[in-house]
Amino acid sequence: MVKTTLIELDTVGFCDIRDITSELELKMKDSGLKSGVITVFVPGATGAVTTIEFEDGNVRDFKAFWEKIIPKDEFYAHNARWGDGNGFSHIRASVLGPSLSIPFVEGKLTLGTWQQVIFIDFDNRRRSRTIVVQLMGE
Amino acid sequence: MVKTTLIELDTVGFCDIRDITSELELKMKDSGLKSGVITVFVPGATGAVTTIEFEDGNVRDFKAFWEKIIPKDEFYAHNARWGDGNGFSHIRASVLGPSLSIPFVEGKLTLGTWQQVIFIDFDNRRRSRTIVVQLMGE
Amino acid sequence: MVKTTLIELDTVGFCDIRDITSELELKMKDSGLKSGVITVFVPGATGAVTTIEFEDGNVRDFKAFWEKIIPKDEFYAHNARWGDGNGFSHIRASVLGPSLSIPFVEGKLTLGTWQQVIFIDFDNRRRSRTIVVQLMGE
Repeated sequence: MVKTTLIELDTVGFCDIRDITSELELKMKDSGLKSGVITVFVPGATGAVTTIEFEDGNVRDFKAFWEKIIPKDEFYAHNARWGDGNGFSHIRASVLGPSLSIPFVEGKLTLGTWQQVIFIDFDNRRRSRTIVVQLMGE
Repeated sequence: MVKTTLIELDTVGFCDIRDITSELELKMKDSGLKSGVITVFVPGATGAVTTIEFEDGNVRDFKAFWEKIIPKDEFYAHNARWGDGNGFSHIRASVLGPSLSIPFVEGKLTLGTWQQVIFIDFDNRRRSRTIVVQLMGE
Repeated sequence: MVKTTLIELDTVGFCDIRDITSELELKMKDSGLKSGVITVFVPGATGAVTTIEFEDGNVRDFKAFWEKIIPKDEFYAHNARWGDGNGFSHIRASVLGPSLSIPFVEGKLTLGTWQQVIFIDFDNRRRSRTIVVQLMGE
């Protein structure tokens, strides 16, 4: 059985990091499914998903990592061509990736105790974001 | 229901980036499935998949990123041992990753408007590549 | 049909890399499923999964990459706050990611000949690790 739902978020960009774990748990409960996989997918080229221990230190370190490795103000051919200044957002999102697959068993996500699912908005402006949450199982 | 098909590509290596979105859409239509997940998987240790807004600027920035972070001509223990010179290809592929999961709903991939699925051949020579495309759903 | 099992590993941390391919093949055979997808998921915020050609050169290059890009002994806000010294482990794990999806067909994983599935323990101490292996298919 397949059930597809959406999470809606208003984000501010520039590596805006949001913990979506409790919404995923809610979607799973609402689905009535007991075992299977949740596919979390970002429809868009400047956002991404992963997991982290969601506490202020890690969040700051994660942001610092992206600024170090793919700096906002370097030269990007994308910016030279389109002038929208979010070349860094595109490369960060492609490197981290848009999809995550999380098994659930007996009505529980198999996340670790100190592990949360995060959506990262790498864009350079406010956005209204939609995240696809698909549950497949029995 | 599970349907597995293949995409075949001739690539030139050195971060050869190919948009496979329209082939994925075709595979989905051919499957007859309406809702579910497409798993895109690279069987091989020097290729990878992700999504990007596939335009020339981003493609150039993406290539520049990999050359900056995992340069072709640095020392690699793999090269010292095997002499095939593609140590950089292996590390790039492992970091970016071989799998991507894309939900589809009512016969449409849930990709964003400006988001394409790309296969990246990180190897250092021409290859004939096979990409696994598995559809699961109803 | 959905079958969920676990792989148990004792690891030493500091980028301890383990080839789990043969265990995955065993889980697939035990499941009785012929075609579908294996979701490999790390429940924990300091471990990750990917694929690699598992030979000593690549393993050393992969470790060197992480030490170069996210060094163990840099400043991390996580360490300043919690004093456990594994800030680097958290960022490495979030960047590489906790999930991998591998299609299997006619009782065979679709991995390449020289491609193995690895679990990486990025933490800074010995751990007893559990990896979730979920098979879905027919």
